[in-house]
Amino acid sequence: MAAQDRLGAPPPLPANGLRVFALGGIGEIGRNMTVFEYGGKLLIVDCGVLFPEDQQPGVDLILPDFRPIEDRLDDIVAIVLTHGHEDHIGAVPFLLRGRSDIPVIGAKFTLALVAAKCREHRLHPRLTEVVEGETTIHGPFECEYFAVNHSIPDAIAVAIRTPAGVVLHTGDIKLDQLPLDGRLTDLAGFSRLGDEGVDLFLVDSTNAEVPGFVTPEREIGGVLDTVIGKARHRVIVASFASHVHRIQQVVDVAQKYGRRVCFIGRSMVRNMQIAQDLGYLTVPDGVVVDIDVAATLPGDRLVLISTGSQGEPLSALSRMARGDHRQIHIRPDDLVVLASSLIPGNENSVFAVVNGLARLGATVITQQNAKVHVSGHASAGELLYLYNAVRPTNAMPVHGEWRHLRANAALAVATGVPEERVVLAEDGVVVDLVDGIAGIVGRVPVGHVYVDGLSVGDVGESTLSDRLVLGEGGFISITVAIDETTGKAVSTPEVSGRGFSDDPSALTAAAELVEAELLRLASEGVTETHRIAQGVRRVVGRWVADTYRRRPMIVPTVIGV
Amino acid sequence: MAAQDRLGAPPPLPANGLRVFALGGIGEIGRNMTVFEYGGKLLIVDCGVLFPEDQQPGVDLILPDFRPIEDRLDDIVAIVLTHGHEDHIGAVPFLLRGRSDIPVIGAKFTLALVAAKCREHRLHPRLTEVVEGETTIHGPFECEYFAVNHSIPDAIAVAIRTPAGVVLHTGDIKLDQLPLDGRLTDLAGFSRLGDEGVDLFLVDSTNAEVPGFVTPEREIGGVLDTVIGKARHRVIVASFASHVHRIQQVVDVAQKYGRRVCFIGRSMVRNMQIAQDLGYLTVPDGVVVDIDVAATLPGDRLVLISTGSQGEPLSALSRMARGDHRQIHIRPDDLVVLASSLIPGNENSVFAVVNGLARLGATVITQQNAKVHVSGHASAGELLYLYNAVRPTNAMPVHGEWRHLRANAALAVATGVPEERVVLAEDGVVVDLVDGIAGIVGRVPVGHVYVDGLSVGDVGESTLSDRLVLGEGGFISITVAIDETTGKAVSTPEVSGRGFSDDPSALTAAAELVEAELLRLASEGVTETHRIAQGVRRVVGRWVADTYRRRPMIVPTVIGV
Repeated sequence: MAAQDRLGAPPPLPANGLRVFALGGIGEIGRNMTVFEYGGKLLIVDCGVLFPEDQQPGVDLILPDFRPIEDRLDDIVAIVLTHGHEDHIGAVPFLLRGRSDIPVIGAKFTLALVAAKCREHRLHPRLTEVVEGETTIHGPFECEYFAVNHSIPDAIAVAIRTPAGVVLHTGDIKLDQLPLDGRLTDLAGFSRLGDEGVDLFLVDSTNAEVPGFVTPEREIGGVLDTVIGKARHRVIVASFASHVHRIQQVVDVAQKYGRRVCFIGRSMVRNMQIAQDLGYLTVPDGVVVDIDVAATLPGDRLVLISTGSQGEPLSALSRMARGDHRQIHIRPDDLVVLASSLIPGNENSVFAVVNGLARLGATVITQQNAKVHVSGHASAGELLYLYNAVRPTNAMPVHGEWRHLRANAALAVATGVPEERVVLAEDGVVVDLVDGIAGIVGRVPVGHVYVDGLSVGDVGESTLSDRLVLGEGGFISITVAIDETTGKAVSTPEVSGRGFSDDPSALTAAAELVEAELLRLASEGVTETHRIAQGVRRVVGRWVADTYRRRPMIVPTVIGV
Repeated sequence: MAAQDRLGAPPPLPANGLRVFALGGIGEIGRNMTVFEYGGKLLIVDCGVLFPEDQQPGVDLILPDFRPIEDRLDDIVAIVLTHGHEDHIGAVPFLLRGRSDIPVIGAKFTLALVAAKCREHRLHPRLTEVVEGETTIHGPFECEYFAVNHSIPDAIAVAIRTPAGVVLHTGDIKLDQLPLDGRLTDLAGFSRLGDEGVDLFLVDSTNAEVPGFVTPEREIGGVLDTVIGKARHRVIVASFASHVHRIQQVVDVAQKYGRRVCFIGRSMVRNMQIAQDLGYLTVPDGVVVDIDVAATLPGDRLVLISTGSQGEPLSALSRMARGDHRQIHIRPDDLVVLASSLIPGNENSVFAVVNGLARLGATVITQQNAKVHVSGHASAGELLYLYNAVRPTNAMPVHGEWRHLRANAALAVATGVPEERVVLAEDGVVVDLVDGIAGIVGRVPVGHVYVDGLSVGDVGESTLSDRLVLGEGGFISITVAIDETTGKAVSTPEVSGRGFSDDPSALTAAAELVEAELLRLASEGVTETHRIAQGVRRVVGRWVADTYRRRPMIVPTVIGV
């Protein structure tokens, strides 16, 4: 048993203590949300969603678990958002449903994406825009913002000053030394803060296992120039809809080679409009055309920029790969560039898209065969720079699965943070900073909160476990109407299966067993429907295991008439 | 629409023609099976299984589709097996069920694995052992065998001579120039065959996208030496149960550092016994201990060698990572080495194991952070050597998804095979070699054949699509007993869901809608059970879509009494 499983409820927070715990994002990649507590007040950093895995079928989104703070929503003084990715802002509307006037703090581009998201939820959040270098005060928390470099514009790190000490939270971060927008991660600011003394340093762990340094984003431009410059026909580029700098480079290269640009996919169209409106994306007039105009242009005058780089089955790119996109039909002379990462877990979907495109004859370029993607997260080499600049007393790896947290912890130790001052605390584990020492004091319950369709939370582990059983083996239903007084069947029992077999006669023998069992039960005078249901479930379950060695769900329904 | 979708049935094979088609393995990775036809006789190369993906839930195995040859089993003169991996031999018992006396040809280690597999199926195959350099004759096919290097001992390539021309099939192949057993891929033999003239060259595509050359297997030994040599406590190595040379290196290093070895996992124990018995694995007496003895040894005197490198949930390693292995409990001082690849599609399971081990405190080494694995398949650089040695008239990429086939085709063209002489023919596409020219002439139907539990083929696309629906959204069942003459309900309708919601009151409103609908139908005099079923399905379906925006399967059962 892991040590963290044995933790009990945390003790009361000492008056001079700062408490930290994550409701998501530590021990997993996604749904980042960290709660800071001081003097009875709560400050929240990020509030994102997690996308479900195979073991969570039918789920649309996974939220941070708000239970540990749901009775304390009035104590929240602010939500600080480090940047606009879904895993950092996606759950904001769900938290605001509980209290809509919580102040939401973030940089301009981040807030533009939050505002768009809240509009869809018909919420009107109280947004406060900040810029790097600025300081805001929320109850006992003084927050200072630092520019950081990531795969979306306007990312920030936040320093939180309280009487208990100074905390620095990187958010998602890398240290591109030649960023396209010239906005460097503020290592100088971190150093200054380090001079002042950082008591607790929360650090992005995503790429801590990866040695070395992330290649500058800028170098992708050169690769795109070569690839698109050589193309003689249509070019389709898929990328993330929030990766404005990547898209800017595609737009620049398209322009250089006299190609128009057409954005495809709802989020791509929406985000690029926001990015243009706010000045993050520069596109001369007339370069962007809509899909109907694009359809009339010769292929060599066009670059389509699409969503679907993760193989999402409903995305434009997936539909093209399956040959069922209404307007765009892949041709053997098409060039498709996936200028994107391959997020673990999406391999099958992404390769299905690549294979579909290859089968239709298109040439497909991915990060496997050309440098058309770089990560947005610091590799180990960059993390060392961060630790050495900040020189924290205590370090706490965040944003990562356990393998990433351990790797990040090793980097902290390598730069001189004492091993016992590196806190590995997964979701729900409570860390108190008291007298300059951060330590684990207990844990609060944090589970997965599922969004399925319109409702939140009613799909839980028991429903998911039923779905897994049904998904693996389907079900066999047995329906019997009995005379309530005699227990005798008043109709032929119906035995049918779904997801069990394509063979219409598969269950014939089972129906006979059910009839025999009903006779047997009736002869024993059994009239209780639940006992009859139990009996038929048992005979059918045994039969199917022996005959097929399968485990469908067995669902008896006995109706008394 | 891809060109291959438009192909019709093939014409009769000309008298001087050789026909080739795959029943699996082209357009996918797995279930390799190629059929060669000449003069009314069939020769089969390999007969393997494919492991299912997410879209094939509950399926245990996928077989090649035998339909195109099922009426011609008596025409089969032999099955030649290139090596003993499951994707090359796993379906042999299923083919032998149709005709048990088909001669099965292969090298010693391959046949030992086939024999063990057939024993489980209670089959007694007619096995013929061959060695490289040997020639066997089966009807009109003269087969010559060549040593090739792969990630299992005793792999062979096969040249097939017929009056229509000479074919060379690589099987799975790489060109390790320093193989541990000294058994080089017989490039000299291939060159000699090339001098004679190879009309059709079927080439492993698996790594055609990967530039360069595969590192020699031998170098892993040095890495294992460093890693295990430095370890102060228990070491657990997970690898493939058939990778005898990899295991040999682990055993050698264990011995060097005075550690005993314990094999864990049914297939690991079985295969290592076979490998020792046949002389492929050399282990001095007393080095191997069983798990009970292992449990009594100090950690620094022990290396456990386990299955489970792909994160298989029931494997020993997965159970250790979840903390529920009966005998082995992971400790913070354990070192775990995954000396294995990460097969695409298994990322989530493998990382779940790594995270589980990391959470328990173990140090985990994978191919991500150390060179503890090399592929068994030739990279692009090696494939160029093959093409240049063989100089084929026609080339046909096999063993790969479309992205791999296209990459392999490009390599063939780069070495001088004319583009129109490179045949991309996915499963079922029929290629005839006539007068030295190979060309696509049609296609035979080839689908997926699923094994689920004891039965083969009764789970088909319709069952799988039901499983996917059930797995995503569960189902809502509505059971009604009606009076057959009046159509009136004789009991309260039962509405219940499985995999729909954890909330017991979720369906209360639906039950009321059903009652209302039944009244309405009865008032209209509707008595047919199927129309009543239709009616209640419609109202519940609409209600659930509006209320929850979910898509459970709606399953009405109307019983007339």
